[in-house]
Amino acid sequence: MNNTRFNRGEEQLKKIDGAAGDRVIKSLEDIAPDLGKYIIEFAFGDIYNRSGLTLEEREMITITSLLTSGGCEAQLEVHINGALNVGLSPKKIIETFIQCVPYVGFPRVLNAIFVAKSVFEQRNIAL
Amino acid sequence: MNNTRFNRGEEQLKKIDGAAGDRVIKSLEDIAPDLGKYIIEFAFGDIYNRSGLTLEEREMITITSLLTSGGCEAQLEVHINGALNVGLSPKKIIETFIQCVPYVGFPRVLNAIFVAKSVFEQRNIAL
Amino acid sequence: MNNTRFNRGEEQLKKIDGAAGDRVIKSLEDIAPDLGKYIIEFAFGDIYNRSGLTLEEREMITITSLLTSGGCEAQLEVHINGALNVGLSPKKIIETFIQCVPYVGFPRVLNAIFVAKSVFEQRNIAL
Amino acid sequence: MNNTRFNRGEEQLKKIDGAAGDRVIKSLEDIAPDLGKYIIEFAFGDIYNRSGLTLEEREMITITSLLTSGGCEAQLEVHINGALNVGLSPKKIIETFIQCVPYVGFPRVLNAIFVAKSVFEQRNIAL
Amino acid sequence: MNNTRFNRGEEQLKKIDGAAGDRVIKSLEDIAPDLGKYIIEFAFGDIYNRSGLTLEEREMITITSLLTSGGCEAQLEVHINGALNVGLSPKKIIETFIQCVPYVGFPRVLNAIFVAKSVFEQRNIAL
Amino acid sequence: MNNTRFNRGEEQLKKIDGAAGDRVIKSLEDIAPDLGKYIIEFAFGDIYNRSGLTLEEREMITITSLLTSGGCEAQLEVHINGALNVGLSPKKIIETFIQCVPYVGFPRVLNAIFVAKSVFEQRNIAL
Repeated sequence: MNNTRFNRGEEQLKKIDGAAGDRVIKSLEDIAPDLGKYIIEFAFGDIYNRSGLTLEEREMITITSLLTSGGCEAQLEVHINGALNVGLSPKKIIETFIQCVPYVGFPRVLNAIFVAKSVFEQRNIAL
Repeated sequence: MNNTRFNRGEEQLKKIDGAAGDRVIKSLEDIAPDLGKYIIEFAFGDIYNRSGLTLEEREMITITSLLTSGGCEAQLEVHINGALNVGLSPKKIIETFIQCVPYVGFPRVLNAIFVAKSVFEQRNIAL
Repeated sequence: MNNTRFNRGEEQLKKIDGAAGDRVIKSLEDIAPDLGKYIIEFAFGDIYNRSGLTLEEREMITITSLLTSGGCEAQLEVHINGALNVGLSPKKIIETFIQCVPYVGFPRVLNAIFVAKSVFEQRNIAL
Repeated sequence: MNNTRFNRGEEQLKKIDGAAGDRVIKSLEDIAPDLGKYIIEFAFGDIYNRSGLTLEEREMITITSLLTSGGCEAQLEVHINGALNVGLSPKKIIETFIQCVPYVGFPRVLNAIFVAKSVFEQRNIAL
Repeated sequence: MNNTRFNRGEEQLKKIDGAAGDRVIKSLEDIAPDLGKYIIEFAFGDIYNRSGLTLEEREMITITSLLTSGGCEAQLEVHINGALNVGLSPKKIIETFIQCVPYVGFPRVLNAIFVAKSVFEQRNIAL
Repeated sequence: MNNTRFNRGEEQLKKIDGAAGDRVIKSLEDIAPDLGKYIIEFAFGDIYNRSGLTLEEREMITITSLLTSGGCEAQLEVHINGALNVGLSPKKIIETFIQCVPYVGFPRVLNAIFVAKSVFEQRNIAL
C-alpha cells in the first residue's frame, strides 16, 4: 500500500535527518509537494528501508555520492547531520571524505570538509 | 622515506586489486611511469593505508565515488574486483549501487550494475 | 496499491521504450531485479505517468538531461528510440541537441548526435 | 553580416531574458566584453533564432540542461525568468524539474526547485 | 561577413585538426550540418582565431577541459592530435594531464593518458 | 624523505598561493590536518614541483580544470590569485576562460569570469 511506503519512509527520514529532513519536506509544500512525497516514499520508504546495508553504511555511501557530484552542499549538510544521527563518528565522516581524494581530487573534498566543519561547530563537536 | 610509501602502497595495491592493479601500473610504464608511482605512493601508500576505515569500507566509498563521477567504467571494473578481493560480498556491492539511485539517478547506477554483472560473470559469481 | 504503480509503469515503459525498455529490465533480472522494479514503479509508474507534460515533452526533457550528464550513451540510445516512439520527429530530436550547445559545449552534443545518427540508421530514418 | 547576428540576438535576448539578460551582458563589459558579444551573437542570434522548436521548448531544454549540469544556479535563475517570459507556466517549470528526478537524482532537482521558488516569490507567483 | 568567419574557421580547423577535424564535419553532413557549421564558425572562426594565447596554449587548455569533463574520449583523441599538430610535445601533453591529478583525481587522468597512448602509437611516437 | 616533500611543497604553495594557500591549510588544522599535509606534499611537493611545464602553464591548466569541474569557485578564487602571483596576466586568465566556451558552454565560463572579476577588484587590477 502506498500509505505504508509513505509511513515507513517518514519514520526513516525522522530517524536519519531529524528536523532538517522535515524542513526540506516543509519547504516543498507550497511549490512541489509531490517531490517531497517522492523523497519520503521512494528515497526513504523504498531505498533506505532495504536490508543488506546498515544505516551507517547507507549514510557513508550517500555523503560520498554527494561529495563526488559537486554543487550539493545543502544536501551534504543534511546528510552529514544524518550520518551523525545514525551513529557514524565525526572521525569516520572525515576519513570517508579523505578516501575520495584519489578519485575526485582535492577541491570537492575540501568543499565537503568545510561543510562538515560547520556542521560539527553547530553541534559542538570537537574532533 | 619515499621508498616506504612505495613499498607499503605496492602491498596494498596487490592486496586490493591483485593482477588488475598491476596491469594498470604496467600499462603506464612507457607513457607516464610517474603516474603509476603516484598511484602506488599516494593513493595506496598514503590514503588506503590510513587507519579509521576498514578496507571494505574504503572500497565501498571508492566504487560509490566512481559510479557517481560517470565515465569511469574501466576503474569501476578494477575496484569492483578490488571490493570482492577485500571481502565485500557481491550482494553488498549491488546494494551500494542501489543506495545511490536517489542521489544520482538511474542511468549512472545502471552503468555500474552492468560493469558488476560482467565482473561477476568473469569470476563465476552467482547472486 | 503497489501493484498498480507497477502495472501502469509497465504500460508506460512499453509505450515509450518498447522492446528496448524490456531488454533493460530483463538484463537486471539475475543481478538487481529490484532496480528493474524501481525503474518501472518509480520512473515510469510515478513520474512518466504524471499529468502536466505530454510524453513528447517528457522525452525531450529526458534526452536533454542524458546529453548533459555525459557518459550515458546507452540510456540515450534507449530514449532517442523512446522519443521517436511517442512522436517526437527526428528533426526535433536533433534540434533539441543543438539547443544545448550554448549550455554544455560541443563535445557532449556531438556524442548525442552520433547516438541519434546510429538510431536513425537502425530505423531507416532519413532526415 | 555580423551586425545582423548581433541585432537579432539582442532582440531574442530581450524577449527571453528581459532586464536580467541585459544585466549579465553589462556586467561583462569591463572584464570580458567579447564574451557578452558571443552570448548575444551565438547563443541568441544563432541558436535561439533557429526554427524547429518554439521558444517555450527552447527554454524547457535550457532549464533542464542547467539543472543537470549542477552549480549553475545563477543561470538557472535567469532562465527560469526567461521561461516565464516566453510563456511557460510555473506549473510546467516545476513539472520539467520533476521529470529529471529519475535521471539526475533528488539533490540537483531540489536545488533547481529552490531557485524557482525564489523566482516565483520575486514575481509574486503562487502555484 | 559570415563567410569570413567560416573561411578563417575552416583554415584554423585544418591547421589544428587536419583530416580528423574534417572527418567530424563530414560525419555531421547528413544529420546536423548546421552543427558542423557552428563548430567551424564559432569554435574555430571566433574562438581559436582570437589573439592573446598561442595555438599551443589553446590546445593545452582544450585537452585539460576535455579530460576534466569526462566521457569526451572521442574529442580528446581529435585534440591530442591537434595539440601535436600545432607543436605541443608529447611530453608536455602527458605533463598537462599529470598536472590535473590533484584537481580531478586519478581516474579521468588515466582515461586521458590511455587515449594519448593510442594516439602516440598511431603516430609512431615514442616518449 | 617525507620532510623534503613537505618542505618543497610548502615553498611552492607560498610562491603560488601566498597567504590564501596558507589560510586553506590553517583552516584544516582542527578538522583534517592530514588533508592539509597531502595538499602540501602531494599537490605542491610532488606535482607542482615537476619539470616539463612552467608555473604559469601549471596555473593555466589548474584554472581550466577548476572552471570545467564546476562548483569549485572557492578554489578558483585561490588559483586565479595563484595565476596572477606566478606571472599570468589578467588578460591571459580571461582568455583562458574564453577558450573553454566551445567545450563547456557559457554558464561555467560565466561563473569563472565573475570570480576573476572579484579577484581583480580586490587587487585593484583594471583590464
